[in-house]
Amino acid sequence: MPTLDICFSPELLPLYNLTGRVAVVVDILRATSSIVTALAQGVAHLVPVSELAECRALAASGYLTAAERDGRQAEGVDLGNSPFGYLDGLVLVRGRKVAITTTNGTRALHLSQTADTVVVGAFLNLAAVVAFLRQQNKDIVVVCAGWKGKFCLEDTLYAGALAARLADTFDTTDSDATLAALDLWHTAAPDVASYLLKSSHVRRLNSLESHKDMEFCVRPDVYDIVPVFQNGRIELL
Amino acid sequence: MPTLDICFSPELLPLYNLTGRVAVVVDILRATSSIVTALAQGVAHLVPVSELAECRALAASGYLTAAERDGRQAEGVDLGNSPFGYLDGLVLVRGRKVAITTTNGTRALHLSQTADTVVVGAFLNLAAVVAFLRQQNKDIVVVCAGWKGKFCLEDTLYAGALAARLADTFDTTDSDATLAALDLWHTAAPDVASYLLKSSHVRRLNSLESHKDMEFCVRPDVYDIVPVFQNGRIELL
Repeated sequence: MPTLDICFSPELLPLYNLTGRVAVVVDILRATSSIVTALAQGVAHLVPVSELAECRALAASGYLTAAERDGRQAEGVDLGNSPFGYLDGLVLVRGRKVAITTTNGTRALHLSQTADTVVVGAFLNLAAVVAFLRQQNKDIVVVCAGWKGKFCLEDTLYAGALAARLADTFDTTDSDATLAALDLWHTAAPDVASYLLKSSHVRRLNSLESHKDMEFCVRPDVYDIVPVFQNGRIELL
Repeated sequence: MPTLDICFSPELLPLYNLTGRVAVVVDILRATSSIVTALAQGVAHLVPVSELAECRALAASGYLTAAERDGRQAEGVDLGNSPFGYLDGLVLVRGRKVAITTTNGTRALHLSQTADTVVVGAFLNLAAVVAFLRQQNKDIVVVCAGWKGKFCLEDTLYAGALAARLADTFDTTDSDATLAALDLWHTAAPDVASYLLKSSHVRRLNSLESHKDMEFCVRPDVYDIVPVFQNGRIELL
């Protein structure tokens, strides 16, 4: 039975062997939720980059630019890190390419590239990722983007939700991180949004707009798509 | 109100500022539980060292030697890493100095030395450490030894138990790690030993002896002592 392990921070990735495994990279608030939303709205592909300057430079190659630093849209770019940027119609995104840089998510994606496949996970596409992982039937490492290298609740809850759905055909008992994430998920599942209102990250983003983002980002199974990160691009399988 | 934060792995310590704070180092299975037991049984002080050779060499200076590698007593030393080594009377420990090296605990102690005070924590001396921390009234970082750098449940439960006892006078809501540890503690508290039977570490140490150790190591408030690590030695305040 293949295993499902969880890495709570990109800083811990050197302790995990991703070779031969599927990595599911998650940054619920908000990078991977926005990436999933973008592709569901018809974005052609996204290029995640580490530096803001690199992101801005891609505008010259026809890219829309999306950038967030410390939870806010950066200066001089087209989009922030809210999924509603791809939904509200203010920027036409269908068919466009997007260059994206975020505090935590981009780093997690780049550090996960030794995996056989790097999947972009969010509650929004949970069922689609579950179906893909069942079909692959390989060991899984969920890579939580965390908050500046530290443990964060929202990514852990996603990992727990994924483990709960896969527990029938994957070994979710061999890792203390997975056992903890499952218990936290079971505590939070009755009302994920309320549970996350207490998290330090959500309180840090304390505003009407970010609560609206958070409530959207914890909706499960909205988009039936599996984005993968390969050859420097995030695109649909 | 001072804060209580938790670092789930020594690998994440570079993200934490220990200056001006009290570090509580914990390795429930079994280094810090054994250290607390040793001092309660009259050991004069302990010297934690990283290398087995360094540990063995201290025998020539009159030290008892205690060493564990991958959960087992190392060759050619007096004691393993079980607290019962200090209790069963086979080795006379009262008044002796002990050189100790363990897989995870020693590393966590050495990496925590930038803190104002480094306290050795275990369930066995939980109440004593709580009283000490209240008296200090400084920010706290609980440093979990983990398992080879990864998250582990037993150290997290201890951190959660500590946070639960201190929640009235310390801010335990500013860190997602603390919030998660509190929820895991509340899940496990009705029967900690049964909860830990599912953990990967306990199953790894699967034997009658290690279950006996585990049941001993989760007993709270047995010893009213506060060991601190200073000037290379662990000794009583």
